[in-house]
This record gives sequence, C-alpha cells and structure tokens, in this order.
Amino acid sequence: MRSDRLGETLLPKKLALPIFASDALSSVAYAPDEILIMLGLAGGAFAAMHSWQITLGVIFVMVIVVASYRQNVHAYPSGGGDYEVATENLGPKAGLTVASALLVDYVLTVAVSISSGVQNARAALPFISGHEVVIAVGLIVLLMAMNLRGVRESGKAFAIPVYAFMFGIIGMGVWGFIKGLTGTLGQAPSAGLELVAEPGHDAVGLAAMFLLLRAFSSGCAALTGVEAISNGVPAFKKPKSANAAATLLLMGVISVTMLASIIALSRMTGVQMADSSAVGEVLLRDGVPVGDTYVQDTVIGQLAKTVFSDFPIGLYFVTAVTGIILVLAANTAFNGFPVLGSILAKDGFLPRQLQSRGDRLAFSNGIAILAAAAIFLVIAYNADVTQLIQLYIVGVFVSFSMSQTGMIRHWNRLLKEETDPKARSKMFRARIINAVGAAMSITVLLVVLVTKFQAGAKYAILAMAVLYVMMLAINRHYRHVSQELALRDDLREAILPSRVHALVLVSKLHKPAMRAIAYARATRPSVLEALTVEVDPEETAALGREWIARDVPVTLKIVASPYREITRPIIDYVKSLRTDNPRDVVIVYVPEYVVGHWWEQLLHNQSALRLRVRLHFIPGVMVASVPWQLRSSEGQSDDWDDRSVPGRAGNIAP
Amino acid sequence: MRSDRLGETLLPKKLALPIFASDALSSVAYAPDEILIMLGLAGGAFAAMHSWQITLGVIFVMVIVVASYRQNVHAYPSGGGDYEVATENLGPKAGLTVASALLVDYVLTVAVSISSGVQNARAALPFISGHEVVIAVGLIVLLMAMNLRGVRESGKAFAIPVYAFMFGIIGMGVWGFIKGLTGTLGQAPSAGLELVAEPGHDAVGLAAMFLLLRAFSSGCAALTGVEAISNGVPAFKKPKSANAAATLLLMGVISVTMLASIIALSRMTGVQMADSSAVGEVLLRDGVPVGDTYVQDTVIGQLAKTVFSDFPIGLYFVTAVTGIILVLAANTAFNGFPVLGSILAKDGFLPRQLQSRGDRLAFSNGIAILAAAAIFLVIAYNADVTQLIQLYIVGVFVSFSMSQTGMIRHWNRLLKEETDPKARSKMFRARIINAVGAAMSITVLLVVLVTKFQAGAKYAILAMAVLYVMMLAINRHYRHVSQELALRDDLREAILPSRVHALVLVSKLHKPAMRAIAYARATRPSVLEALTVEVDPEETAALGREWIARDVPVTLKIVASPYREITRPIIDYVKSLRTDNPRDVVIVYVPEYVVGHWWEQLLHNQSALRLRVRLHFIPGVMVASVPWQLRSSEGQSDDWDDRSVPGRAGNIAP
Repeated sequence: MRSDRLGETLLPKKLALPIFASDALSSVAYAPDEILIMLGLAGGAFAAMHSWQITLGVIFVMVIVVASYRQNVHAYPSGGGDYEVATENLGPKAGLTVASALLVDYVLTVAVSISSGVQNARAALPFISGHEVVIAVGLIVLLMAMNLRGVRESGKAFAIPVYAFMFGIIGMGVWGFIKGLTGTLGQAPSAGLELVAEPGHDAVGLAAMFLLLRAFSSGCAALTGVEAISNGVPAFKKPKSANAAATLLLMGVISVTMLASIIALSRMTGVQMADSSAVGEVLLRDGVPVGDTYVQDTVIGQLAKTVFSDFPIGLYFVTAVTGIILVLAANTAFNGFPVLGSILAKDGFLPRQLQSRGDRLAFSNGIAILAAAAIFLVIAYNADVTQLIQLYIVGVFVSFSMSQTGMIRHWNRLLKEETDPKARSKMFRARIINAVGAAMSITVLLVVLVTKFQAGAKYAILAMAVLYVMMLAINRHYRHVSQELALRDDLREAILPSRVHALVLVSKLHKPAMRAIAYARATRPSVLEALTVEVDPEETAALGREWIARDVPVTLKIVASPYREITRPIIDYVKSLRTDNPRDVVIVYVPEYVVGHWWEQLLHNQSALRLRVRLHFIPGVMVASVPWQLRSSEGQSDDWDDRSVPGRAGNIAP
Repeated sequence: MRSDRLGETLLPKKLALPIFASDALSSVAYAPDEILIMLGLAGGAFAAMHSWQITLGVIFVMVIVVASYRQNVHAYPSGGGDYEVATENLGPKAGLTVASALLVDYVLTVAVSISSGVQNARAALPFISGHEVVIAVGLIVLLMAMNLRGVRESGKAFAIPVYAFMFGIIGMGVWGFIKGLTGTLGQAPSAGLELVAEPGHDAVGLAAMFLLLRAFSSGCAALTGVEAISNGVPAFKKPKSANAAATLLLMGVISVTMLASIIALSRMTGVQMADSSAVGEVLLRDGVPVGDTYVQDTVIGQLAKTVFSDFPIGLYFVTAVTGIILVLAANTAFNGFPVLGSILAKDGFLPRQLQSRGDRLAFSNGIAILAAAAIFLVIAYNADVTQLIQLYIVGVFVSFSMSQTGMIRHWNRLLKEETDPKARSKMFRARIINAVGAAMSITVLLVVLVTKFQAGAKYAILAMAVLYVMMLAINRHYRHVSQELALRDDLREAILPSRVHALVLVSKLHKPAMRAIAYARATRPSVLEALTVEVDPEETAALGREWIARDVPVTLKIVASPYREITRPIIDYVKSLRTDNPRDVVIVYVPEYVVGHWWEQLLHNQSALRLRVRLHFIPGVMVASVPWQLRSSEGQSDDWDDRSVPGRAGNIAP
C-alpha cells in the first residue's frame, strides 16, 4: 500500500463492520460453551439455574465496554489504539504493559479461534474427531503461509462470511424460537444425559460463588476484539468518529443478540456441556458414564443439530460459517501482530528493523513468530478451548483497564483547558462513562485473576512480564546508544583525516583482484599497497612472479603467518599502520564474490566476512568490499524489480 | 603449532606408539565380543567350536595388512595417508572415494569407541546399566567441548593410559594363564548359562558358512586404526621410515597378542556372549531364559571379574584403562577429522574456509559436525556396539583396498625408472607384499559387503556416496569459478574507472554519520553526496534543518520512498547513477555500529546488511562500511591477542 494512496480506501460502515468485528463476533462461538462448562462443574442443574445470570452479567459488561470505547473513538479520530491511549495518558510504562498484554493476546486469539473452529467443524465432519491438534496446526501453518505470501483478503471477501455467520446464528435463533413457540422444537442430543458434579465442586456457599465468578470470567471471552474498531477509526468514511461509534454500537447489539439467543436456545433444548477432561465420567446415560468414546459437540453444533434436525443444509451452513469466521478471526491477529510490532519498533521497544512497514521481511518475522507461538500453545493444550481460555482474558482486560483509565486522564487534561460549557458538559459525561468503564474493567480483571490464576492465567502473566522486561531492555539499549552517538557542539567527528592509506587484499591474481586494484587506484589514495598473507611459501612465490610478469603498478606487501592464519596477520598489520600514523584513515579493499545460490555463499567469502568483523573493531579503519559478480548471480537482483516505482528526489545543498 | 616449529617435536618410538596406536589397540576391546556374539547366534557350542578359527583368520589379515602398510611407510616418508596414496596413484576420484570412506569412518570410530567404552565401564560401575545412551552422548559432548577449547593432550599424557591398557590386558592374560596352569582359574559369570541358537540360525551348511563369514567380518574391527601410523611418518625421529615401520610392526604384535590372549582366556573361562537384542531369551539358566534384567558384561569385563575374582583392584584397573583408551581412540577421530577436512578443502573438495589449519573456527565446524553425527548414531543405535559395528568396517576396507592397489601402481611406476638391480629387487618384493595386501583387502571388503550390507553397511555406503557426490559438486563449482576468474591477456579488469562517485548513507546526524562524511571527504572523490531516504516527511525535514544548522559541507540528496522501504530507493538511485555514467565507479559509504554482544547485533545494522547484499549485485559499485565502535565493543578485539607474534613482512615493488 503506497503511503499516499492510503486515503483512497476509506470504508463505509457496511464494510467496516465485518472487517473490524470478525474477532469480536466470532467469540460467541466459544463464550457460551465456556459459561455452561464452568457452571456444569457443579452439575447440570446448577448450570441450568445460573446460566442466565452469568449471561446477563457478561452482557452488562459488554454494554459498558462498548459505551466506553465509543468515547475513545470520539476522542481519538486518528485511531487511538489501547497502546497509544495508555502511552499518551499514563506514560510509556503503561503503554508497554498494554503492548505486552496485546502481543500475548494475539497469540491466544490464534490458538483459541483455530481450536474452536476445529471443534465446531467436528459437528458436521465427524472424522475430525481425534485429529483436532493436527488439523489446528495445519490451519495455522496455512494462515502463516498465506500471510507470508502477502495474500490479503479484500474487504468484500471478508464481508460475505461475516454476514453469513450473523445470518446463520440469528437465523438459527429465529427458527428455533418459532419452533419453540409452535412446540416443534426437539431436545438437544445431550439433553437426555445427566450431568453430575465433578468431585470437589459443591454447589453451595463460597465454592458456588467462586464457580459463578469463574463462569463469568470465561464468559467474558465474548468481549475480546471489541477494541478493534477503536484502532481503525482512520479507515472509516467521514464523519470518521461518528461512523466508527455507530459501527461499534451495531457490533455490540449484534454480539449481545447472538450471545443471548444461543444461551436461550441452549436452555430450551436442554444442552449439557461437560469439561472436556471429564466428559466420559460426569455425563451419565441411564446412570452409567458415557465413557471416552462420547464426542461432545460445541453448543452451536448441538443447537444446529437440534434446530435443523429436519433441514441438514442448515446444520452444514451454520457449522461451516462458524468455522470460517473463527479462521478469519485468527487471521486478524496475523495482520495486527506485525503492525503492533512495527509501532513498538518505531518507539524503540523492539528491534528497529521491524519498523519498516513496507519491508516484507520484517513482517515475515512477526508472522512466523506468531504462528510458532500459537502452534506451541495448541500442541501444549491439545487444542482444548476450555484450557486455552484460562490464559486468554487477562490480556484483554489489562488492555481495557489501562485504556479506560487513560481516558479519564485524557478528559481531565482537556477539561483544564476547555471553557465552552457545552463542550465541558459533553466531556464530563464522557469522563463518567470512561470512569465506569475503567472501574468495571478493573473489577473484571481482578475477578479473572482470582479465578483463573492457578488454572493457567499465570503463564499468560509470565509471558507478558518476560515481554515487558525484554522490551524495556531493548529500549534502554537504544537510548544509551542514542546518547552515546549524539553530536556535541565541537564536532570532533567532522575533523578530516590527514591521509588515506589504502590496502587491497590479494590472494591470487585473478579478475576480482585486478578489479579491486583498479578501483582502489581510481580513488587516488595517499598510499596504496596490495597485501597478501604468506600461508604457503610456494604459492606466495608464484604470486610474486606473476605480479612482476603482469607488471601490476602497485606494491605487493607480503606478511608472514607463522600459525597459518589469514585474518590475524592482516589485523596486526593494519593495527601497526594505525599506530604509526594515527591521523591517517585506513581503507581495506576486499575483493568479494557475488553468487546466485545460498549454498555457493557457503563456499565463498567466509574469510572476508570474518575479516570484516575483526577489522571493524579497530577505530579509523574502513572496509570496502569490491564485488565480483559471478555468472550464477546474474538476474538475481531483478527478481526484485516487479514493484519498481520511480521516486521523487530532492537536495539540501551545503 | 607454528609452522617453523613443527620440526622440534619429533617423536621417539616409545611415544609414537601410544599416540598413533590408541585407535588400533583399543579395538581389541570390542572385536572379541563381536566374534563371539556373531558365532553365538548359532548357539554356545558353535561359538566355542569356531572362535579360534575366526580369530586366526583375523590375525592372518592383520599380519598381511601390517606388512603392506610397512611398504607404504617406506615409500612415503613424507606421510602417505590413504587419501594421498590413492589420489597420487589412482587419480582424484579414487582419492575422493577414500576420503568419503574415511570421513564416515571417523564418525563411526567415535560412536563405536564411546559406546564400547560405556559398556566396558559397566562391569565395574553397575549403575551405568540402563543409562548407556545418555552417558555416551555426554562423553561425546565432553570430547567436543575439550577439542573446541583447544585442549590438546601432550604425548606423555597420551602414553600413560595406552601403556596402562597394554599392561592391564597382557597382565590379565599372563595372570589368567598362570591360574589356568595351576588349576585355580574359575569360570566366567556367564559360563553357567546355556546359550541357545536364535531362531533361523542353523549351525549347518550354507547358513553356518555365512555366519562364520559374518563373525570374521565383525572380528576385522580389530584392524581399524592400523593405517594411522602411515599418516604420521613425518612426526617420527630419524630415520623416520625405519622407526615408523618398526613401530607399526610392534603395534601389530601387541594387537595380535592381546586379541589372541583374550580369545584364549574366554575359551578357558567359558564366556558366553549373546546378541544384545536377544540376551534375555537365548541365555538360559537351568533351562529358563534369564530375562530382561540380565546385564551382559563385555568379554574384557567378564574376564577381569573371573581372573581377578580374588583381587578386585585388578578388575577396576582393567575396566578403567579399557574405558579410558576407548575415549582416547574417539579423541583421535576428533583430531583426524578436521585435519582430513583441511586437506580436502585445500584440494577444493570442501569449502575453502576449512583449509586454514591455524584457524580455530574452521576446525570448530569440523569438530561440531563430527560430534553431531556421532551423537546421532549413538542415539539411533541405542549405543549398541554390535549394531554400530555393522556400519563400521566397510570404510576401513575401502580405504585399505584403494591404498594397497595404489601402492602396486606406485611400484610399477618406480620400477620403470629404476635400474639398480638391488633397488629393483627390493621394489619387486614390496610390490608383491602390496599386491597380496590389496587382494586380501578387496576379498575382506567383499565378504564384509555381502555379510553386512543388509545389517547396516548399506547406510554407511549411502553416507559415503552422498559425501562423494557433494565433494565432487563442490570441486566442480570451484573449478568453474576459477576458470571464470582467470585473467586473460588483455587485462580488461585493470582499466581505471574515470571518476569516483561517493555516496554517504545518512539517516540521522549523529557521530557515526559525521565520521562517515569526514572519511568520505578525506578520500576526495570526484562527486560526493549524502543520501537519505524519506520514509517519514517530518523526520526528513528535521534532518534537513539540522543539516543546514550544522553547515555540513556536503549536499544532502533526499530520495522518496512511496512504499516506506529503505533499501529499494537507494538501489534505484545507485542504478540510475551507473546508467548515467557507466565509466564511473560508485562507492557507497555505510555508517555501521560495532557492538560487543551478539544480541546487540540483532538490534543494529540489519538494514545495512541487506543493503550491502543488494548493492553487490550491481556491477561497478563498492560498499565501504565505516564502523563506529560503541562502548560495549571495547576490549572485544583484544580477547584475541593472547597469541600475538610479530610476523615478518616483505615487499614486491611494481
């Protein structure tokens, strides 16, 4: 994407919704499952009794978070991602905390979405059962390959499956309710089973309370991805903020509708969900455990089978679009992760070479790291969504909490300067909403930490801490270097060396050596010598004879190598030049071969490479490589010219 | 070792024997075991009946091989390794065949010696049982580390354990025979067991014949390492050849004595050896299989337990020195492998950077590759000597056969020129001995191939073939390049470019940039420009302002980067310079940071690196890096100065 063309691709709301909301909407594919599974730990009756309470709690949080982010969108029309909002209002360390949380969450988005997608597909494609991990890893590799190849889906390609997913889920809800009202809705496949409590999970007192909070924490997975629109405000058509806020509201409404209808349908059809690690024991058929051969479908899968019991196309449609939207949600992480990496690199928290957005290589690194980490998680947790969810929500709510707290500061600052009473009252209102959002986010974060720490959240926190410390260390390094390199006013570095002493390294008299000598002569140095290391006296003698026979117009200096090394005698000689004439600058011309294949590279230039590294440690020495293009290198630079565009050029004269 | 000091460390025979013979002598630690195990496949009675036949066969081969190599030693006082002998007399392809065989054999020497060492140590240290693979891998890693650190044992440090091993084995033999004569020699721990034939191994007809040949092939493992002395003739005191030949003879006598006494003792004490994969089933105690808990000691271990039943110090001494000499034998491979690599690199069959013997890094690669390959084998074959031996002998006898055949040609050539009848008769005699050696080696090679191909030798042959093809391809590449680079008489490459166009790459105005500008100015090019890429217009504007404020005496050229890339606009600009003035040479000065830690390197210079690679593809462009030494790099070049020795220097004037 050319910088100056970014403005041409502004999005209308109907395209922005699917593009930014796939992550948020897709989470209704697993959030209801997690609510029912957590409650089900205390038995089927407990789950049936409390699932509505928990769902209403999640919807309440969703309403507040959406309302809060509408304020962000209005306040930062240039695109206030959580990282920027936290950095600007709470300082770089807060921003870095958010960034660590987001990086970990991108990995989890991929792992959770893909795992859930595979589980959902299983309802329609039973042969998947037992191969979930392999298929999930395969999908991640596929996504990685597509993103490495630079395949970008257009907005429209994105829109169709997202709208199909909404249509499928809401359509299933409507159809199910109609059937329910007409009394033709059947019972779910698992409704005939009895779900007994797992040992140690009593449905009374504090234990019951704790279980309700755990279910609530898991249900809050429905909120992941809500912040995506606030990052993308600049991509909206004008009025940007208003359109983005409207889209955000629409997304919230759709999300809540889908979540509520899935929970309602699951109550009407009697869906039973058990923790995957204990499915075989706690689900009883006629009082007998169903055993390890029982395959538990996802809630959406069970509902689709029940609602569309007489219309199998409906079942295939719903499971297909659910699987697809989950893969799309994972794909958003593949886009977001390297972009965040680029922003962090620009701010000096990650290696600087990740900064350049136009550079395919930098993005490739990010894509490969994301895929590798997600594959690790999928394998470590056996593609089990319930276990992965335990790690997931922490990062999301760290990010929400920091961002909303930052917004309070933002309004405080603006209120200090604003005098117009109308504007002030709007700001007051926004500040209250963000304050409620912040309080709510922090409360949920604490609940999540308490209920999930031991179950897995600790690993997510550990990963965030490691990233935080690493990024801080990188930043400290860059700052130290920058201070070390800053110019003082005396400009000692601009003093010209008095003379230039040029050395051409020669091992044989062949074309590359002759070219290096010719080029070095063309630069007209104060002193010019050719330098060779005597490893084998016979070879050196032959070189000397040819030197004289060819009448090479440069002195050939021969240094001995008592230990048959090559690098060391050259270094010693250069050091002696520097010691004798400290005000000279030495330039060492090294003939190098340019080859076409990586394995040819292994066969050449290795001593030149080591020599350059060593020479660089001596102050006042430049190393000039004089390339010789071997035939195999021909055409190698042109595989690169497909995107050539002439650039403007300008001068600043001295 | 300094080249000019190599002459100072010539070895007397008493030191040369342990240094060159540890590999050959150590093989008596496993050769008797393999003879008994192979014969034992057809039952204990078969083994008892035929073990002497096989041993005499092996001794016969040993006598002929030693006699043959004594001719090599006389013919090549400068050190005729099998590779050199084959190359000189049979051509480079024969030499390459030998080299492939030797490289594979070095790996197997390490794997077999270490595995056998661990098995031998088990007799004295029973806790090793069950942890053989881990301990073997640990020992290989230890040897690798010692060799990487450059720890070299002196001749004396080598001599003590080798003489101790000879003393231990021959002492055990003498003590055992005395006990046998006086009737006080007990029976081995396994003598009370019955060894039954494995299914499918009949002791009659062709099958029995095949088994005898297999046992003979395995027994020929005793011959590995015999060729070592012929490589090392130059290290002997004068008269070199005579001393080397005497040492070789001595080694043969000791080897044969040890082998014969071990086999004799094992017959006297009734040692039973079963194939490790079937120990539990084929060994019966009172008619019942001993089962998997039975740990089978090596022959030396069992003999030491029997002979020294009333003198446990003897047991510990023999197993300790056996273990140590096997580790020393593995260590000789760690010395020999990189040396052979260096010779092959010099002849253009391996990457040239392996050539320099004085270069620690080149040797490090060889040491690490050898260790990795040996570890792979130890793990793949579960540190089982019997299985590893199946791969081992092929390479040794390929090398013997080629070398001895080469020697016949050698004498043929000399005989054509020699006229002195006395010298001629000596040559005739030598030629007959070498011809017998060649015929014998080829016969044994065929027997080994037939009996072991399916059991594992095929993998060794495959590895040799892969190495052969790879080395041939490398050689072809070097020859092509050398032809491409050879100077013609017109010396077009010596034509001076008409002008020098210098570019200094600048991203910020800091000390490295100022130094690069100063150095570039010092070289007084025809045209000098500073070049920056505009990724962020604000940053570029700031650079421009500072440029003017600081009054930098060079034009700053700004190129646009519509895709926010850095490398590409620079390449395009340099290409345009070349197109406009094809007779100019362009020199691009790149400021680079020199850092002290590898991880700092990841944070810097990455774009410079990519840029250099790209610029090298454009003919007529040099890249000069102007290093800036960051504080963390201080002292980094001096960790290297510990061996500093002033070198002589000489000139060849134009």
